Amino acid sequence: MQRPFATFLVSAPDQPGLVARFAGFFYELGVNILDSSNHASRDDGEARRFYMRLVVDLDGLASPRALAALGESTSRRTLEQAFGKLASELSAMWSVGYSDAPEKIALLVTKESACLYDLALRQKQGELPGEIALVISNHPTLEPVAESFRLPFYTLPVTADTKRAQETQLLALLRKHHVTLVVLARYMQVLSDAFLAEAPPVINIHHGFLPAFQGAKPYHQAFARGVKLIGATAHYATKDLDEGPILEQDVARVHHGMGPEELVRVGRDVERVVLARAVRAHLERRVIVEGRRTIVL
Amino acid sequence: MQRPFATFLVSAPDQPGLVARFAGFFYELGVNILDSSNHASRDDGEARRFYMRLVVDLDGLASPRALAALGESTSRRTLEQAFGKLASELSAMWSVGYSDAPEKIALLVTKESACLYDLALRQKQGELPGEIALVISNHPTLEPVAESFRLPFYTLPVTADTKRAQETQLLALLRKHHVTLVVLARYMQVLSDAFLAEAPPVINIHHGFLPAFQGAKPYHQAFARGVKLIGATAHYATKDLDEGPILEQDVARVHHGMGPEELVRVGRDVERVVLARAVRAHLERRVIVEGRRTIVL
Amino acid sequence: MQRPFATFLVSAPDQPGLVARFAGFFYELGVNILDSSNHASRDDGEARRFYMRLVVDLDGLASPRALAALGESTSRRTLEQAFGKLASELSAMWSVGYSDAPEKIALLVTKESACLYDLALRQKQGELPGEIALVISNHPTLEPVAESFRLPFYTLPVTADTKRAQETQLLALLRKHHVTLVVLARYMQVLSDAFLAEAPPVINIHHGFLPAFQGAKPYHQAFARGVKLIGATAHYATKDLDEGPILEQDVARVHHGMGPEELVRVGRDVERVVLARAVRAHLERRVIVEGRRTIVL
Amino acid sequence: MQRPFATFLVSAPDQPGLVARFAGFFYELGVNILDSSNHASRDDGEARRFYMRLVVDLDGLASPRALAALGESTSRRTLEQAFGKLASELSAMWSVGYSDAPEKIALLVTKESACLYDLALRQKQGELPGEIALVISNHPTLEPVAESFRLPFYTLPVTADTKRAQETQLLALLRKHHVTLVVLARYMQVLSDAFLAEAPPVINIHHGFLPAFQGAKPYHQAFARGVKLIGATAHYATKDLDEGPILEQDVARVHHGMGPEELVRVGRDVERVVLARAVRAHLERRVIVEGRRTIVL
Repeated sequence: MQRPFATFLVSAPDQPGLVARFAGFFYELGVNILDSSNHASRDDGEARRFYMRLVVDLDGLASPRALAALGESTSRRTLEQAFGKLASELSAMWSVGYSDAPEKIALLVTKESACLYDLALRQKQGELPGEIALVISNHPTLEPVAESFRLPFYTLPVTADTKRAQETQLLALLRKHHVTLVVLARYMQVLSDAFLAEAPPVINIHHGFLPAFQGAKPYHQAFARGVKLIGATAHYATKDLDEGPILEQDVARVHHGMGPEELVRVGRDVERVVLARAVRAHLERRVIVEGRRTIVL
Repeated sequence: MQRPFATFLVSAPDQPGLVARFAGFFYELGVNILDSSNHASRDDGEARRFYMRLVVDLDGLASPRALAALGESTSRRTLEQAFGKLASELSAMWSVGYSDAPEKIALLVTKESACLYDLALRQKQGELPGEIALVISNHPTLEPVAESFRLPFYTLPVTADTKRAQETQLLALLRKHHVTLVVLARYMQVLSDAFLAEAPPVINIHHGFLPAFQGAKPYHQAFARGVKLIGATAHYATKDLDEGPILEQDVARVHHGMGPEELVRVGRDVERVVLARAVRAHLERRVIVEGRRTIVL
Repeated sequence: MQRPFATFLVSAPDQPGLVARFAGFFYELGVNILDSSNHASRDDGEARRFYMRLVVDLDGLASPRALAALGESTSRRTLEQAFGKLASELSAMWSVGYSDAPEKIALLVTKESACLYDLALRQKQGELPGEIALVISNHPTLEPVAESFRLPFYTLPVTADTKRAQETQLLALLRKHHVTLVVLARYMQVLSDAFLAEAPPVINIHHGFLPAFQGAKPYHQAFARGVKLIGATAHYATKDLDEGPILEQDVARVHHGMGPEELVRVGRDVERVVLARAVRAHLERRVIVEGRRTIVL
Repeated sequence: MQRPFATFLVSAPDQPGLVARFAGFFYELGVNILDSSNHASRDDGEARRFYMRLVVDLDGLASPRALAALGESTSRRTLEQAFGKLASELSAMWSVGYSDAPEKIALLVTKESACLYDLALRQKQGELPGEIALVISNHPTLEPVAESFRLPFYTLPVTADTKRAQETQLLALLRKHHVTLVVLARYMQVLSDAFLAEAPPVINIHHGFLPAFQGAKPYHQAFARGVKLIGATAHYATKDLDEGPILEQDVARVHHGMGPEELVRVGRDVERVVLARAVRAHLERRVIVEGRRTIVL
């Protein structure tokens, strides 16, 4: 059994000494840093920003030094309060996650099963540093698949008329299951801005190499254009469809002999791997969104 | 020394028996097929088309069977006449090239040297099944590079006012050197429709993954969008900029820590390899253009 | 519903006219060639060999020309007899498969589920041009997975003492289910030479980049050596372990921060894709084994 | 003009607080950390080791804080003395390089020009964070290439009898030119253990995917085995041929139709890119050797 660890993700205006300040904070407490990485953005007219990811061993919280620094109650809450104070001094935004409190994931699907199978299987194999709490679909088609992995499955049908109501039900389900990450695993519905404003982060897999083929039927577009590579893009869903910050991309080689349906088949293999990598990076708290870009530490 | 061979490239409305008819033509002559491949387009509303590439050993032209079939003068010309007759019966378009009469290539460059070095070096190493006849630039910068490979170099400066006149000079140079393929090896000028209409085929390398980042400064666009892969696309130049049929594409992985200038560096490595593959495929007579697509046999 | 087609795979000593002879055979019958490709080996001391794959439309068998050529009974059997006669004249080896008589596949597994899920899912999605007839394992672990895809599952435990008896049972099961292809989808047992001599073709996935890391624990070997890429290799099983003809390979990038268990995770993604591609190539009758090499047409 | 920076590379037995200690050292001096990354090895029986790379802005050396901490003479030498004291307390090994004192590289070549052209061209384009001080060959063949890039070229012929003497001359040349990195850019001679013991670090490009095809003619081995991918490996040269720590690897896809000479052509493209990446990583002081592995920070 691995000892519990916490992962801090920080973003701040750059200034000298930030690595030393954040690393020093944990050193003072006698809390060991298991892994850390940082990055500063370029000086391109805009102010430089500093990004850091720190994975720390929570056993250190019981040390005398932590006791001395945090007071008698060296709980996660006092740790967060102390870290928050430092962050505040440095105008930093930050978040923290704990390895023994994994994120709760909702998978949204429609009828295509490949991404659902893939993520469910990864959870079963212990590959996913998170927990698929439920599967939600607008069709009942994939219920047996969810059941074979013993995942709760909810059908929320939707029409143009019922969209608002369905999204309200969706949000209620997410709340009820304490969902912290929504994954659109080939969910063939556009989510409203209102939904996105209230939902936890949403990762989408676009079955095309963004920004090359935006919108519908990218494989048919790719075939018509005679491309030699097809790709898939995992991105955060934002108001502007297919314009969200990109988490991960990959491609596969195709040739003139492949029709649109074969591009779909090849593309499906790329999609599920790209989606899995993106979900994993998010769950490991490696991703900071900065405008239209992501920093993946 | 390899024996001379001819490469036939054929495109025709599909019908039963085409493989047998074309292969049979050479069999009747006692001319050996060294390599052949064929493809038929999909039945997607439009009429199916058939594509075939045949590489044949020209030694067979001296055989008694060839003599009997083609008459006393079994020259390449009588071979072409006989093949043309068959092609005409089958409503086929065709072309032929001979290994001992390599295509003459004009490289058009501006100031960036990587693609020029790459192609010149491949010719020197015997990798290029064609001959770089001359290098033309709108700047004198790369003259020493061309000279170090003993390639004739012409400087044809151009301004908005002299564009028409410069393109006329360009066409004259191409004709004088019997150029059959123009390669835009980072030539930073847009060629006019009038030029393209009169010039031999023109291959361009686009320093971006088409159709993702069309137009100027694709690496800056790619950086701003935070893509995780960058690519390059080799395509035939057509009237519509960056919309010509794609010959070859490839990508390289990049990350958030790379600024635009590092994307340029990584992209340059992809560009030269993609351009070299595209030029090679064209010179080996593997490429048939079909509307906006290419068939690469 | 696609019309039935037959796929012929031919290997013969090279001589002039082979493309014309084989293509002409079907043309004479009025049988349309849907797809064909061929290859001749290099003249490297050994005699050149010629390889051809022909996909033909079986509807042509009902044509008057077929009737005239094959006699009244234009069955598949008479087609095969006629083709066999031609092949015999040309000293060719050949085989044929029919699209409406898909190959029967036995998947052999132990406890790891990723490859089983992957292939079962591809069959469900109509991607696999064959039929998984049964799943056989030396452990009962994966029975629920097979059941969730409604695939017959047999447990044949094995120890050093019972190996010969177990393999006899295995062969009996293969025969009973008319199995024509065995896929070792992470079956953790070495098959005896006696078994391989009697079994249909066997495809194995090696979780390493052959011939780099042969034998056991390739990911631990790869970690110790600090490689920057790991790979997987699908090959036909032969008497010499891990030395069989290679069908397909691929790699994924890794880095110093990944321990052996993470290499296993990354490698698993490569393995299942490589195995699926290899199985597909075999089922589409694209593969000819030539000594230690494969020709994939 | 970029301001001068220093790159520190550190390796130490792991213990709590190392990130804070090393980062804090520079913070105390008012020296800004431009980039940093660190890694700790796994707890796999052996003692964990900690690795860190720090890039710092040398302008900070003129700050009042540096003055106060280092005494009046805030030179690079006093900085190194102070850092060395800290390193010594932590039992750390370390090295430092300065951006305005680039490493001097000796390229060793024989007759093949691709890697020489590639590295010379990268230097010309300002891609190489180092300086090619000279080119040494056992044949005069590539002298014109070196000259076209204005690189000093030395011919040191070698036979079995003169090997020891030639290596002595080689070492003398390296010393005379203050060479800090030797790159074997297709140098077709095995270097003796005695030479390696006295020479600066030596990077070799192996034209094969190690450890798959060690020794001579890897492309012929690859062809005979029918592999579907070929690769190249850049590694530090050590006493055991082809067994040195791997810096970088990559592969390219090949098929049955390619003979050994085409594998060589495809492989050459992979080789030069892999070698360039490896040399760049070394020059940027990203590489720490740990036994048979490398850590690339």
